[in-house]
Amino acid sequence: MTQYKVTLAYDGTNFAGYQVQPHQRTVQGVIQAALAKMTKQPTFHIDGSGRTDSGVHALGQVISFAYPGRLAPASMLAALNSLMPLDIEILDVAIVADSFHARYSARGKRYLYRVALGKYTDPFKRLYTGHYPYRLDVARIRVALADLVGTHDFTSFAASGGVITDKVRTIYEATVTEDAANHELRFEFYGNGFLYNMVRILVATLLEIGNGRRPEHDFLRLFAVKDRQQARGTAPASGLYLKTVYYPEDDE
Amino acid sequence: MTQYKVTLAYDGTNFAGYQVQPHQRTVQGVIQAALAKMTKQPTFHIDGSGRTDSGVHALGQVISFAYPGRLAPASMLAALNSLMPLDIEILDVAIVADSFHARYSARGKRYLYRVALGKYTDPFKRLYTGHYPYRLDVARIRVALADLVGTHDFTSFAASGGVITDKVRTIYEATVTEDAANHELRFEFYGNGFLYNMVRILVATLLEIGNGRRPEHDFLRLFAVKDRQQARGTAPASGLYLKTVYYPEDDE
Repeated sequence: MTQYKVTLAYDGTNFAGYQVQPHQRTVQGVIQAALAKMTKQPTFHIDGSGRTDSGVHALGQVISFAYPGRLAPASMLAALNSLMPLDIEILDVAIVADSFHARYSARGKRYLYRVALGKYTDPFKRLYTGHYPYRLDVARIRVALADLVGTHDFTSFAASGGVITDKVRTIYEATVTEDAANHELRFEFYGNGFLYNMVRILVATLLEIGNGRRPEHDFLRLFAVKDRQQARGTAPASGLYLKTVYYPEDDE
Repeated sequence: MTQYKVTLAYDGTNFAGYQVQPHQRTVQGVIQAALAKMTKQPTFHIDGSGRTDSGVHALGQVISFAYPGRLAPASMLAALNSLMPLDIEILDVAIVADSFHARYSARGKRYLYRVALGKYTDPFKRLYTGHYPYRLDVARIRVALADLVGTHDFTSFAASGGVITDKVRTIYEATVTEDAANHELRFEFYGNGFLYNMVRILVATLLEIGNGRRPEHDFLRLFAVKDRQQARGTAPASGLYLKTVYYPEDDE
């Protein structure tokens, strides 16, 4: 058996999320079916770095699996890509230590969130951005982003349904870039882990701060109250991209 | 009655083309339904500058119609956009002379064709480009594009099914731009008119020339032979955009 680490991109539009579900088209399901075919096994199991919801995209999702036999990374990449639908692209393949696990070995993740500005939805961006047609003061958003950096209890920013009880996470970087040419804001969040829907709730709250509907430093209050009802919004799945998953180099 | 000229963008992916067809979702059908609703009429007719096929996009399609009553252009724009699905955006509304007709008044059109390079299909471009994974010599393509400019008989480049017998058209500009950052080629064609599938057949032929499978000056031979069988390829609909429709200023 050889352990593989595979990095992939996908357009989440036509998937019912990453995680395998009966009778649904999922990223995990499509890749497992390809590997079952390659190995002539009835089923095949892969581990992902984490789930992404329906409509959420990935620029650098990571999966790992144990493969019976040993294919050179370039051959594995070509074989997998030949079996992928057009909305998944295998970007990179590496042979890693047997102990490598896409989820348990991960030390951090980086998410991108694209917000399309402008009064009306750009038809070419509707599946790839969240649309925010209202006034935004980016200076206020930058003040709020500074409050996000550090170690905080993100209970107010976790959708119900998660089974995780420890909701303390560390954000290393939280930035916004104005892409004037494309009439977009691009948020990036780099942290040691993210709760269910956390990035989308953070973005919705940041947009409310930018619009003046919340005080600039409302994150400080929201960390303290630990109440999801206080941070109600969730930005659309279509704007969210899992950009990078980070691993310690010595795991690979 | 007031005559309106309306410019719009659409993502052609989920439309069965521009032209209305029974039991199909079409751009014309969606807009006519909106105007029927606005005017409380059972049906409403609009004229488009021309058809686009299923999967073909528009950055600046133009339609015209006679509206009972008179709405200020900004009000018409807001009213129409409020009734549009997310894959159509109304960009501009103008009140024009009663004689203005989106098709008959048009003096020229500009098309964009985006070709994604690279070995594998980028999941985020599959609906918005044609993919060409093979070697291309852009210098050869530029030589061929120079042959296209001018007045020629495009019989070799017209898909069957058209009813038009005069296949002489004038191309004013035919260019290619290398977008290295996005790993794309972008073709633009500006001419006085285009036959059915003509741009997609031209692009397929240009890529064959760039790949070395046809001589650099093969367009000169193809103009002379007037035989569609000699220019067999048709580039995918997903890469094609109707970019601009040109009208004489005094029509408006």
